[in-house]
Amino acid sequence: MRGNLIVGQSGGPTAVVNASLVAVIQEALRHDAIGEIYGMRFGVLGLLREDLVDLRRVSSEMLEELRRTPSAALGTSRAGLGDDDVDRIMRIFQARGIRYFLYIGGNGSAATALRLHRRAADLRYDLWVIAIPKTIDNDLVETDHCPGHPSVARWLAVSVREAGLDTEAIGTADPVKVVETMGRHTGWVAASTALARQREGDAPHLIYLPERPFVRQRFLADVERVHRERGHVLIAAAEGLVDERGQFLAASQRPVEADPLGRPQFGGVGAVLCDLVMTHLQIKARFDKPGTMQRVSALLSSRVDAEEAYRVGQAAVREAVAGRGGTMMTLVRERGPVYRSTTGAVPLDRVVGDIRRVPEEFIAPSGYDVTSAYMDYIRPLVGPLPQYARLAPAARTPI
Amino acid sequence: MRGNLIVGQSGGPTAVVNASLVAVIQEALRHDAIGEIYGMRFGVLGLLREDLVDLRRVSSEMLEELRRTPSAALGTSRAGLGDDDVDRIMRIFQARGIRYFLYIGGNGSAATALRLHRRAADLRYDLWVIAIPKTIDNDLVETDHCPGHPSVARWLAVSVREAGLDTEAIGTADPVKVVETMGRHTGWVAASTALARQREGDAPHLIYLPERPFVRQRFLADVERVHRERGHVLIAAAEGLVDERGQFLAASQRPVEADPLGRPQFGGVGAVLCDLVMTHLQIKARFDKPGTMQRVSALLSSRVDAEEAYRVGQAAVREAVAGRGGTMMTLVRERGPVYRSTTGAVPLDRVVGDIRRVPEEFIAPSGYDVTSAYMDYIRPLVGPLPQYARLAPAARTPI
Repeated sequence: MRGNLIVGQSGGPTAVVNASLVAVIQEALRHDAIGEIYGMRFGVLGLLREDLVDLRRVSSEMLEELRRTPSAALGTSRAGLGDDDVDRIMRIFQARGIRYFLYIGGNGSAATALRLHRRAADLRYDLWVIAIPKTIDNDLVETDHCPGHPSVARWLAVSVREAGLDTEAIGTADPVKVVETMGRHTGWVAASTALARQREGDAPHLIYLPERPFVRQRFLADVERVHRERGHVLIAAAEGLVDERGQFLAASQRPVEADPLGRPQFGGVGAVLCDLVMTHLQIKARFDKPGTMQRVSALLSSRVDAEEAYRVGQAAVREAVAGRGGTMMTLVRERGPVYRSTTGAVPLDRVVGDIRRVPEEFIAPSGYDVTSAYMDYIRPLVGPLPQYARLAPAARTPI
Repeated sequence: MRGNLIVGQSGGPTAVVNASLVAVIQEALRHDAIGEIYGMRFGVLGLLREDLVDLRRVSSEMLEELRRTPSAALGTSRAGLGDDDVDRIMRIFQARGIRYFLYIGGNGSAATALRLHRRAADLRYDLWVIAIPKTIDNDLVETDHCPGHPSVARWLAVSVREAGLDTEAIGTADPVKVVETMGRHTGWVAASTALARQREGDAPHLIYLPERPFVRQRFLADVERVHRERGHVLIAAAEGLVDERGQFLAASQRPVEADPLGRPQFGGVGAVLCDLVMTHLQIKARFDKPGTMQRVSALLSSRVDAEEAYRVGQAAVREAVAGRGGTMMTLVRERGPVYRSTTGAVPLDRVVGDIRRVPEEFIAPSGYDVTSAYMDYIRPLVGPLPQYARLAPAARTPI
């Protein structure tokens, strides 16, 4: 069916979400079934305000530049929709002849897409809704991984490798370093710091994921042991760590009215862990909390990720034009010794409301490390990493 | 005079301090006057323990790899010296025939070098002492800039550019972001975030340096105004900000016995500023604190910096072999439209005990920005930066 297309970006920006956007535009330009190509500014917030942009007017040169630009060029939101909002959006779709709704985002965005898909069906309004996966958290089900995640993994692999060399060098003055990673509910991002290691014994020495309850006494014993053995310790910890009672370790910060979702403020795990180490072990500790920088680095992004982010956007347009909707695009890993992926699609109701945690087989029995099965999963997504040198043992024999 | 050489690294690691070390080794290998080439592990700590390495045994391939490796391959320390330590070191020098002492570091390392220089003179022991500048803080006097600084500046230029695009995109949910930079006593590192801007109005919108007292009410008024005008705010703040009474904003964290210098723990400015914004303006705020990651990134390092770090190391050996000592090597900027630098040397007593703050002419009258004179100073040191795109205005006209 001929109709207009609207595309939006939602949730946290990533290094490659503009690649998905550009793919949607470039693919849409190839299909006669698609008339106008609208972009919504700041996700559904812009849609509700009809703050739309005409993406046919973006030059092909600009599209190529945008494809390499991190963050989200249309702007995003984390806003949910009320019932009135849904009805208002349906009226806007009808008034503007919009038949294709493509929404690039994570769990919340898939839920929004599903609501619009269902409402359109109720109203017998022909609308093809496709969710395009994007989340650094890697927590969408039904897809091998999520565009955006391999790039944050690569950023952390390189940056923790470097931060580990730093701690190794200055361990005499600053022996304990905590790297606080993103990851509110899952440990995928924290787990990826394991890529930093060039050889056994390298940083990170301890990796803590929200999938396992954090036990203070065990943590202190682990830090004390590594410090005794190596003289320095690098700890990677997800921001969303929870204790044995299921309480966020760092949820004690004051709630803020301005948080539209009323969520607790995260970002304090690094400080909490340093405080534990300094108080109970009397060892100096500091933390690095790269925050949003880890998710929007273009220069350290993964090539596989940038290419896949483009392909899921492209496939989404083809899916919609082929008359399929109510789905989320996925990435499917092919079997074989060389990494290859294809795109697929799953019904939105199999995705929404679920969350993919790091599975048991990826977490070491110790609870503070990952397994080789995890390394096999993550390595091909991240690509080659810089190799750094250390003084050869020959030069380190006492003289 | 023929004799053995010893070289060490001291203080915080940087992206390019191994380039200086490799330069010392490669240059020393060219001079017949130099016998053994010793490296001290962990600075003067290793020297006192005679934990030394034989740098003639490092292969030329390994040297090339080390040159590109961030952090400090020999290990560093922040330890000072007691009088007994100085005497012990002089005995080690005599026993091992060490005539050349090269120490790569910042203010503390220059002070150590000066003490050894003076003590050797007292003892009429021929010793050529050279300090090789290295500090991301850029706070050594008598040099145009310090090796290590241009690379942290480039890291922040790129990362704050990206973090700024992130805040611009998700300002509807996360409107205020603080980027906490290094810089205990000076604002050079924080100032360099100004390089992030591609055009007027880009992040960072407010830059706070320790050179100007931080006034809470003025800060809140500035944040409120930028938020009203733009909908989002990115604030760059040095970790060492002080209030009108000269108190560190973030010195309230508990003192820790394990800090060998008894210094207050920094790193809390981001949290303090977010708390101010959330409490008084009721606007959600978060902070990025890249910590040690900003100082040891090889992939985002400055080419000029890597090349100059090598040249000061090379020049130090030539200076020592030529029979000059008691000096620190410097970088001298040549006049002219194209950036060029040469190396120089100044007596250590003109360097030690002084600290170079960001001068008045580099700080904007508002107190929360830098001047164009500063931009002229910093740009050539950092080199080209990635250019990122935004949707063209044509595509943003209402439709």
